Amino acid sequence: METIKEKAANGIITEEMEIVAKEEALSPEYIMKGIAEGTIVIPFNKKHTSLKKIKGIGKGLRVKINANIGTSPYHMDLEEEIEKLEIALKFGTDSVMDLSLGSILNNVRKEIINRAPVMVGTVPIYQVGFELSKKKKSIEEMKIEDFLSVIREQAEDGVDFMTIHSGITMDAVNSMEKEGRILDIVSRGGAFLVKWMKKNGKENPLFTYYDEIISLLKEYDVTISIGDGMRPGAVLDSTDRGQIQELLNLGELAQKAWDAGVQVIIEGPGHIPLNEIEANVLLEKKLCQGAPFYVLGPIVTDIAPGYDHITGAIGGALAALYGADFLCYVTPSEHLKLPDTNDVKLGVIASKIAAHAVDIVRGKDTEWDRKMSESRKRLDWEEQINLSLDKEKARGYRESSEIGEENVCTMCGKYCAIKQIIEAEKG
Amino acid sequence: METIKEKAANGIITEEMEIVAKEEALSPEYIMKGIAEGTIVIPFNKKHTSLKKIKGIGKGLRVKINANIGTSPYHMDLEEEIEKLEIALKFGTDSVMDLSLGSILNNVRKEIINRAPVMVGTVPIYQVGFELSKKKKSIEEMKIEDFLSVIREQAEDGVDFMTIHSGITMDAVNSMEKEGRILDIVSRGGAFLVKWMKKNGKENPLFTYYDEIISLLKEYDVTISIGDGMRPGAVLDSTDRGQIQELLNLGELAQKAWDAGVQVIIEGPGHIPLNEIEANVLLEKKLCQGAPFYVLGPIVTDIAPGYDHITGAIGGALAALYGADFLCYVTPSEHLKLPDTNDVKLGVIASKIAAHAVDIVRGKDTEWDRKMSESRKRLDWEEQINLSLDKEKARGYRESSEIGEENVCTMCGKYCAIKQIIEAEKG
Repeated sequence: METIKEKAANGIITEEMEIVAKEEALSPEYIMKGIAEGTIVIPFNKKHTSLKKIKGIGKGLRVKINANIGTSPYHMDLEEEIEKLEIALKFGTDSVMDLSLGSILNNVRKEIINRAPVMVGTVPIYQVGFELSKKKKSIEEMKIEDFLSVIREQAEDGVDFMTIHSGITMDAVNSMEKEGRILDIVSRGGAFLVKWMKKNGKENPLFTYYDEIISLLKEYDVTISIGDGMRPGAVLDSTDRGQIQELLNLGELAQKAWDAGVQVIIEGPGHIPLNEIEANVLLEKKLCQGAPFYVLGPIVTDIAPGYDHITGAIGGALAALYGADFLCYVTPSEHLKLPDTNDVKLGVIASKIAAHAVDIVRGKDTEWDRKMSESRKRLDWEEQINLSLDKEKARGYRESSEIGEENVCTMCGKYCAIKQIIEAEKG
Repeated sequence: METIKEKAANGIITEEMEIVAKEEALSPEYIMKGIAEGTIVIPFNKKHTSLKKIKGIGKGLRVKINANIGTSPYHMDLEEEIEKLEIALKFGTDSVMDLSLGSILNNVRKEIINRAPVMVGTVPIYQVGFELSKKKKSIEEMKIEDFLSVIREQAEDGVDFMTIHSGITMDAVNSMEKEGRILDIVSRGGAFLVKWMKKNGKENPLFTYYDEIISLLKEYDVTISIGDGMRPGAVLDSTDRGQIQELLNLGELAQKAWDAGVQVIIEGPGHIPLNEIEANVLLEKKLCQGAPFYVLGPIVTDIAPGYDHITGAIGGALAALYGADFLCYVTPSEHLKLPDTNDVKLGVIASKIAAHAVDIVRGKDTEWDRKMSESRKRLDWEEQINLSLDKEKARGYRESSEIGEENVCTMCGKYCAIKQIIEAEKG
């Protein structure tokens, strides 16, 4: 079976390319060319039969957002994860990643895939750790076969894209350690692999056996999202040698996956100060030949636990403005606890705001803002509420205000500037 | 009496300059030179005797934030406004503006000034409108004497800076109308003046009698914050001819105020798409010879009523990154209703995040982020909470989580990356 990447390279326009072209108001040829070059991906595992909202990610397309959901060892509730999925969908997430840990992780993944009309991603090494622990083994005892068998199981389940930390090599870790960091590794997957490497005194097996991994992903046409295990976890650690050494690796790994006919996403930081975001996006685009860039936040300051949906929306908006393609949300509970349903909602909304603010710069979906502004001009409150990203929230504010007899809001009352100008125009 | 601007021009270092220099870790000479050139202001009316936290705004200093409070005709509660003041102070606002409308506006202003240890700003035309309405007159009947007498009253009360919309001229309004906008004027003060101009068929009296206004402000050493009555109220209206025509006026008006020895702040938009923010800041800095730029938001999309603290924080962070000096917060209730105490809190926090994210880029206060990151490395949760911008919020998240026996958080539990790396380092 040819993968979508191979079809694109052979000039074949598939149904998925046509769907994405239509949604993005671009030509199918543009999408095909982007996939062939690697600047666009359409993550879609044919076994994910509930996937109805096929989306493209990459150059020239709308900015896409992802919501991370999933259980933790201390908090496992399948129903709650399904609620999180539903609320993330309600507010417009383009994908979900199931990052479940704990004994019910396989059930959660299968349920989410079965119910998700959007693409689903995973980080297979979490399941690997779980399967090993069932056999009373630690992650350091992982064999490449353990990893491959989990990839196959998840691909059979219908996972559309998988985060695989193949770029975190001994070179990159040494680079980081020589330079020194406040917070060394903050990627869970990255930490598993560093433990493995230190214990076994060998190179990262996901790097060593990368060809085998790619070959298996190709079999199911699963997109690889190459993880950034070295991402900084503190704004003061950003853009250091370890991070950039790994990014160099990611570029080479992307090339190998493309050569094998597999679609590639590149994952990125993390915690970056505002003035380094542009360079981070540019470096990724240059070193990884334009592969779609998937950033986590980035968070632009560390001082606001409880509000990292905002620190992440600021960084995400800037990253997307400079060319990042895919924003992983951050919720208010980041750094403190597993997000609950409301955290997921706030995370998706903040991320959607960042993505849309860039979409309008890209000339997409400006009609939404136009209609809102026109309804403001008409003082048409019902329409303003209907056009709001969160209608309930907007309605709640409107209804809780002492509106009085005039068709205005309580901010200015009869002194409403819009009302005054309407009156002045009437003369 | 010499104003602070005149003293700076004469090479005199005042106590206020020394206070600001110390707080900013800069030399008193740097502050003096900035005030003399007009790139720095220290708004401080000597009659504001409760002002203990004297702050500078401008080039090379920390980014400052402002919280707008005040009553509306439909919602007047002095106690609530005092609560808003207190919560804004708690979360670190550098100034408050009292924008009260309605019959208690004079009481509210006096109370806020008496209680505010930070600088207080006002928009005097609101009181002018109120005083006229008491005499059964409309704003279109305003005489310049009405305006000057309100300025004097507010200056006597101790207002530190006043927004005066002298730049909204007939030229600028014509420019806007010829080009066309979705939402014409969204500035309350601007709308008052447009009504006045249209009714009287004369130039904006705050432009015509600018010298008289400046001369009065000089008497009390009150800083003028030249208002942007033409600011766009829709991202699709941004950076148009009307807005830039007014900005040209603001540059000339700034020069006149400086020549008279009065400190100047320039107000700016408003609603601007992400990709126009850099140019807006650059234009202000060029056309107004580096005068401190005070932006309202800017909001980067119109689709998120209920979340405009986030759309404003994104825009504010970017504006400050490019050189804006003073961020006016936006609250979640913007466009829907008068903010309540919780809205004020969320607005200040979002704005503070934006300001601090830029402060660390400017090399200021990076120790805050460093300490947070170090406490994360030590898994010291109490210290993380104590360092949080909103300690109660962070503590609430921490306490609501099923922490288990390990010193980690419920996001990853025992798979915490930081914990794993500590273990790996121990070997």
